[in-house]
Amino acid sequence: MHAITISEPGGPEALVWGEVPDPVAGEGEVLVEVVASAVNRADIMQRQGFYNPPPGASPYPGLECSGRITEIGPGVSGWSVGDEVCALLAGGGYAEKVAVPAGQLLPVPAGLDLKQAAALPEVVCTVWSNVFMVAHLRPTETLLVHGGSSGIGTMAIQLAKAVGAKVAVTAGTKEKLDYCAELGADILINYREQDFVAEIERATDGAGADVILDNMGAKYLDRNVQALAVNGRLAIIGMQGGIKAELNIAALLGKRAAISATSLRARPLGEKAAIVAAVREHVWPLIEGGRIRPVVDRELPMSEAGTAHQVLEDSGHIGKVLLVAP
Amino acid sequence: MHAITISEPGGPEALVWGEVPDPVAGEGEVLVEVVASAVNRADIMQRQGFYNPPPGASPYPGLECSGRITEIGPGVSGWSVGDEVCALLAGGGYAEKVAVPAGQLLPVPAGLDLKQAAALPEVVCTVWSNVFMVAHLRPTETLLVHGGSSGIGTMAIQLAKAVGAKVAVTAGTKEKLDYCAELGADILINYREQDFVAEIERATDGAGADVILDNMGAKYLDRNVQALAVNGRLAIIGMQGGIKAELNIAALLGKRAAISATSLRARPLGEKAAIVAAVREHVWPLIEGGRIRPVVDRELPMSEAGTAHQVLEDSGHIGKVLLVAP
Repeated sequence: MHAITISEPGGPEALVWGEVPDPVAGEGEVLVEVVASAVNRADIMQRQGFYNPPPGASPYPGLECSGRITEIGPGVSGWSVGDEVCALLAGGGYAEKVAVPAGQLLPVPAGLDLKQAAALPEVVCTVWSNVFMVAHLRPTETLLVHGGSSGIGTMAIQLAKAVGAKVAVTAGTKEKLDYCAELGADILINYREQDFVAEIERATDGAGADVILDNMGAKYLDRNVQALAVNGRLAIIGMQGGIKAELNIAALLGKRAAISATSLRARPLGEKAAIVAAVREHVWPLIEGGRIRPVVDRELPMSEAGTAHQVLEDSGHIGKVLLVAP
Repeated sequence: MHAITISEPGGPEALVWGEVPDPVAGEGEVLVEVVASAVNRADIMQRQGFYNPPPGASPYPGLECSGRITEIGPGVSGWSVGDEVCALLAGGGYAEKVAVPAGQLLPVPAGLDLKQAAALPEVVCTVWSNVFMVAHLRPTETLLVHGGSSGIGTMAIQLAKAVGAKVAVTAGTKEKLDYCAELGADILINYREQDFVAEIERATDGAGADVILDNMGAKYLDRNVQALAVNGRLAIIGMQGGIKAELNIAALLGKRAAISATSLRARPLGEKAAIVAAVREHVWPLIEGGRIRPVVDRELPMSEAGTAHQVLEDSGHIGKVLLVAP
């Protein structure tokens, strides 16, 4: 088969579409013929050499895909050859075929085409596991989403609105903020022109955000704690703004607040399967009912993965960038 | 009545036993004739002028007491004059009488004398709310308790052992560690001679502590994160080692770990009542069954509160220091 390989860590040109051996469906796995994958920030870090695949994972990038099952490995039940699926992956999505642990498979939601479904697994599993399973966002609460127009952001806005919460977002342009408003965001903050702490305080009558979904890490840590409400929860899922920062414990304690930090890729199979099962139970019906949809910025041929990475690095996108297999 | 007053913030001598007006049982409150109170670190901070009572609270120190109900305020049901109780307070325990919101009352556990019951409310509510309600310690997990021989520490050891968890403690002397072992602690770490990160790693085959109950704040933040297991939870309840420190977010994210920081005193009545109700349901039966007991270092007359504060400041105690009303 063909896959995107990384011979040397580097820029987008390091991604090379080449011939590689076919994967094999091991115990508890199925083989999926990939129709599309999608780009995540973690793929860029992997390309740059900062985020190696966990032991046992495919060496090729790609943390999600959609496609058709072509082979059922030993010990798998509940899935058949020919099933149209999307899947959370530990790697290997930028390829024509990928082996997937059965617990990470999801059916394509009714009403969605197979290609679009590739935009779902990472964002839905990340948002559901952090905002709902870890931070327990409640319908009466306010969620602040940094990077509201990203793939994660566009899904977080929709999911939080679907449960009845109030949603604040930060983004860097009016166009992006307008799009967030269309998805239902209530409070729009241009981080280039406004101080998000002051804006959240103003928009919540001084109460602050009950949950913050953060991709910036160090750069926003202190301001995120300032922006939290009493009993607030800061869920960190990215470190685009660095990894170390001073924490004001007194400020955290005064609010009885909490900080969590998670990633999906390194979780053991059982935890991933639990998240995927929760997503299928709680989020799939919302997608099938038309309440929530994947936001796709553009589609590119998988062989042009480097161009797709450049789009994310330039932050010129809204939602997900898909990579379509030949 | 008499109470301990603080005319000027300062050393132990700032605590003066004097004549003050009687408190009044307001809406939803009862009046308790105090038999004993107990000393908490927060009382020392209040004496020093660093921790003022929240709005509406008694100006006198004392966050817990035991005694007899002498008057029932309007809107209170389920309690009678003459009932022997202990109570969580927002202040005013160092006094002959105190007004208590009914939701913060607990019956004296069967088998315990009234005086001893004053040693329970703060430590039981703090440990239960943090280790179980926030950090969800499970029977198969390991709890690390800093300051294992303190009032909080001696209760945390016993509660964690009662649910079947493994317990590690830090303390500064062999005598204190021996006492922790008698209470059931499995892993004993002398923080003056040993590195607790290395000791926890060794004693858990590299896994780390699932939950850490921390009273040191800034000084231990980085090492606590290092000592956490994957999916670990650090519960900060004190800042004896300072309020600001660098947080390594990458280390936290790599472990999918969380940090919470809470205090009891500033919580609204409803949250305190919920904690007290949970304690009555889950912890009181363990005390009445003899599985858990309050650890009392010594009793002093309430008028000698200054001496009691000095005992805590010198860290010469094991468990709680009681103040007995005349």
